[in-house]
Amino acid sequence: MTTRERLIYLPLGGAGEVGMNAYVYGYGAPGKERLILVDLGVTFPDMDGAPGVDLILPDISWLEERADRLEAIFITHAHEDHVGALGHLWPRLKAKVYARRFTAAIARLKMEEAAQPLDAVVTVEPRPGAVEAGPFTVQFMPLSHSIPECAALIIDTPAGRVIHTGDFKIDRAPVVGEPWDDALWQSVAREAPVKALVCDSTNVFVPHPGRSESLLAEPLTALISEAPQMFVATTFGSNVARLKTLAEAAVAANRSVCVLGRSMKRMLRAAQETGVLTSFPQLVTPEEAQDLPRRNLMLLVTGSQGERRAASAALSRGRYLGFEMRAGDTFLFSSRVIPGNEKGVLRIWNAFSEQGVRIVDDAGGLYHVSGHANRPDLEQVHRLLLPDMLIPMHGEHRHLAEHARIATEAGIAAAVATNGTMLDLSGEAPVVAEHIETGRLYLDGTVLIGALDGVIRERLRMALNGLVVVSLILDENDEPMGEPWVELMGLTEKGLGGRLLNETMEAEIGEWLGRQGRKVLKDDDRMEEEIRRIARQVAMEEIGKKPEVALVISRLALE
Amino acid sequence: MTTRERLIYLPLGGAGEVGMNAYVYGYGAPGKERLILVDLGVTFPDMDGAPGVDLILPDISWLEERADRLEAIFITHAHEDHVGALGHLWPRLKAKVYARRFTAAIARLKMEEAAQPLDAVVTVEPRPGAVEAGPFTVQFMPLSHSIPECAALIIDTPAGRVIHTGDFKIDRAPVVGEPWDDALWQSVAREAPVKALVCDSTNVFVPHPGRSESLLAEPLTALISEAPQMFVATTFGSNVARLKTLAEAAVAANRSVCVLGRSMKRMLRAAQETGVLTSFPQLVTPEEAQDLPRRNLMLLVTGSQGERRAASAALSRGRYLGFEMRAGDTFLFSSRVIPGNEKGVLRIWNAFSEQGVRIVDDAGGLYHVSGHANRPDLEQVHRLLLPDMLIPMHGEHRHLAEHARIATEAGIAAAVATNGTMLDLSGEAPVVAEHIETGRLYLDGTVLIGALDGVIRERLRMALNGLVVVSLILDENDEPMGEPWVELMGLTEKGLGGRLLNETMEAEIGEWLGRQGRKVLKDDDRMEEEIRRIARQVAMEEIGKKPEVALVISRLALE
Repeated sequence: MTTRERLIYLPLGGAGEVGMNAYVYGYGAPGKERLILVDLGVTFPDMDGAPGVDLILPDISWLEERADRLEAIFITHAHEDHVGALGHLWPRLKAKVYARRFTAAIARLKMEEAAQPLDAVVTVEPRPGAVEAGPFTVQFMPLSHSIPECAALIIDTPAGRVIHTGDFKIDRAPVVGEPWDDALWQSVAREAPVKALVCDSTNVFVPHPGRSESLLAEPLTALISEAPQMFVATTFGSNVARLKTLAEAAVAANRSVCVLGRSMKRMLRAAQETGVLTSFPQLVTPEEAQDLPRRNLMLLVTGSQGERRAASAALSRGRYLGFEMRAGDTFLFSSRVIPGNEKGVLRIWNAFSEQGVRIVDDAGGLYHVSGHANRPDLEQVHRLLLPDMLIPMHGEHRHLAEHARIATEAGIAAAVATNGTMLDLSGEAPVVAEHIETGRLYLDGTVLIGALDGVIRERLRMALNGLVVVSLILDENDEPMGEPWVELMGLTEKGLGGRLLNETMEAEIGEWLGRQGRKVLKDDDRMEEEIRRIARQVAMEEIGKKPEVALVISRLALE
Repeated sequence: MTTRERLIYLPLGGAGEVGMNAYVYGYGAPGKERLILVDLGVTFPDMDGAPGVDLILPDISWLEERADRLEAIFITHAHEDHVGALGHLWPRLKAKVYARRFTAAIARLKMEEAAQPLDAVVTVEPRPGAVEAGPFTVQFMPLSHSIPECAALIIDTPAGRVIHTGDFKIDRAPVVGEPWDDALWQSVAREAPVKALVCDSTNVFVPHPGRSESLLAEPLTALISEAPQMFVATTFGSNVARLKTLAEAAVAANRSVCVLGRSMKRMLRAAQETGVLTSFPQLVTPEEAQDLPRRNLMLLVTGSQGERRAASAALSRGRYLGFEMRAGDTFLFSSRVIPGNEKGVLRIWNAFSEQGVRIVDDAGGLYHVSGHANRPDLEQVHRLLLPDMLIPMHGEHRHLAEHARIATEAGIAAAVATNGTMLDLSGEAPVVAEHIETGRLYLDGTVLIGALDGVIRERLRMALNGLVVVSLILDENDEPMGEPWVELMGLTEKGLGGRLLNETMEAEIGEWLGRQGRKVLKDDDRMEEEIRRIARQVAMEEIGKKPEVALVISRLALE
């Protein structure tokens, strides 16, 4: 390596948050680095931050401006926060997309939905298979997570070897996929020293070692056997291993299995078509299921996070695809609640409670295990790989900071780099090279808008404050024609004194207009400012709120 | 008791939810019962359900219509969900309000804020003190909770004794207030058999016995002593016992204590003025605190639930009242997160993490204990009081159902009665007498509006879908004057083809108007329907959204 060339790392999403993962690596002379992108995911919006928005995507402007230097895109696994933005943002990048078989199948679905070319997605074999991408050689190293075929990336560069873990756990007996193997990972580190470990931080605060997916089979079988009536289970649709465990437990309990929910069916199909899932109990259709005794039926349904349009929520509201819950049925959440989703999940719990349904949660880990490495597991990976430096990713700031602290205490150089922080990894320790302007894009309907464009801020303001629409017509001599017209949106009709709020505003605005000369009446900006002030003042006096104001001034020209 | 008279129970809030507690009891001939009300609290709104709303209150219309039969209002304790609606709703009821000293002090503050008469609030002494209210004799029986002077109500009626627990825990060594005493409670049940126990259900799913407030002193003192720099702790401002424990631990660790946050100061003042708090370390002012070494300072601050305007959030954003957090400081959340508040709390955690502040949470109970009775504690109370029936309250449906199940298994008659379900408690077991229409009121600014009035629905729709304002002027012959004018609120300016969305709408609406005869142009309803349809169709094509539409039609009369 010449003194001029450098190895850089730049998260554009996923560092300082959980969601919309997008990590750039580059190698070359400063400003001329050849680049690769790892993952291109989404985050899900909420009412507090982005009402009405469909998806949140990383702002990849920096990379887009340098798309000619982008050698390839690598997808570690098929979760939405790693692949969900591919279809929407690929047209801005247009690089080849590499992924393992199952992940590639989902990636192609994303491309298809966005009418992008499917052949941009290339299926790769895991290590020793390798992809050459400019100065990078990238191998996919199988790992366990809560979706099939997750992979860490072994990224060899002229500056040394980088291991980008993606999402992972240590599972020595996963139900689907390859078991964790200490020796294998040691051999990776022995083959070439690990310069940088860029590592999942999600569960850094969980103090106990992670538990294997395979431990769930026995308690789940017992639970499903004991259920007196229909048994319904929800988990992430992409957790194919869990679906297999649940389905097999159902069969052992003499139950037929029926799957409800599009995303779950799609994942199962992809898993079967790509050979990930070689055995899975025969499913029954919803129609066939209707004819079975409830005691001999298990439904696998979507909506473990309380999503309003998914099967769980639909069942909690009443009849869905011919099914309805009854007293004596059991509903299992084989999942954990992602922070922010608590209220939606509890809404479903309470609805089931009203129906007399027994609700079972993860029971402290009896019926669910996490897909992420816990703190002792992370420490073990540090010890196995002995990296020169540790760069925590996939976590909020508190996760990254804690993960860095652990590494530092173990004598490993570490740096907390949140979205937009470019690190130079060329030396002995990570060095901040630059701060890049980053942000978020909102998919709103079919359009991508910038998070700071003001559109969503305007929605939030209307939601919080309500809206007053004032319409005013002036003639060719700038004389008001008739009274101003006020329409209220999201505001109560009557004020404190029982007076109609819009009429009070009309009167006050009309009176003000009557006092103005032509100089003011010619001046739209001045009128807008004053009319807004009057409308808000009246609202404050009458209802104690300061609403948003939209003013429509129509000036009639001589005809 | 004659065969005609009956004892009724009717929750108007707090049953089937956690919040806005309001429970009616009545005794007398059906439809002529004399009534009492227990508690009158609020719930806090969120963006998902009620954006811009200040408080949620129970709809007490049923009681308001029968206010002439209302003998008295009793407040069990001074938490917002039990007393917060008093000032707003008292004018509709105008009955005397009874509470213990500290609670009465807070109740008077609520009355004062709403400009209601302070002398409506009567301070009562705990049992054996008693209030006669029509056919009811009510005694306040001291209990521990997370606020001083909580009380259960012993309600004696011609139909027998009812015990309404309010919020409580079993604490044999509370830091403030009277210890739990099995013998005392047994004597209450021996004195007169308990017909009905109406009982807090909040922690029915917590399987282990509750822990005493006094257990926190030692670990908190250790934690505060070890902190190398400034120590900041947050908890509910009303948890006066916790504030005392924290402040005394600080003094033991050679730190001065400074309180930041209006609600916390107010609670401490009320506790001192009412004699609840007889000893509390001397506080220093924020100005005095500035001059102290950080190592010798502890701040007690509001905002344990992540409230944006409270001291915790303010400190997480930067300088607040001359203080700012620095690397090496410690911030303790001596509290649990109420479901729904997770995101706000985590936002603060991450901001502190960025500042290098060490964050300490309740550490699984080491630094926080709950104020509610856990499942084994509830079972113990059932055993001590041996009620004929158990009516679970203060919980979501799942809590009530589980609490009822426990009672039933122990051989106690039980019924799940959510808001609006009137129970007849006269017989051996609770019987549903009637279903009352109940709901919620929103305090929006200074006005109370019904939750179903449509105002908030309109706000939610604007937030989710954005708004199109269309202005149209017609002359005296119903001819459109000029083009229609379209204004977008909370919508992106440009559609898919890069065209301006408002201009496309104006063109399409203008074209449609041009094709219409006078019959349509005279018909506001018809035009509104069509123009709405066109605007939404254009939006759907251009940006994939169906916005709300506000149409302002101005018809110019001949002058």
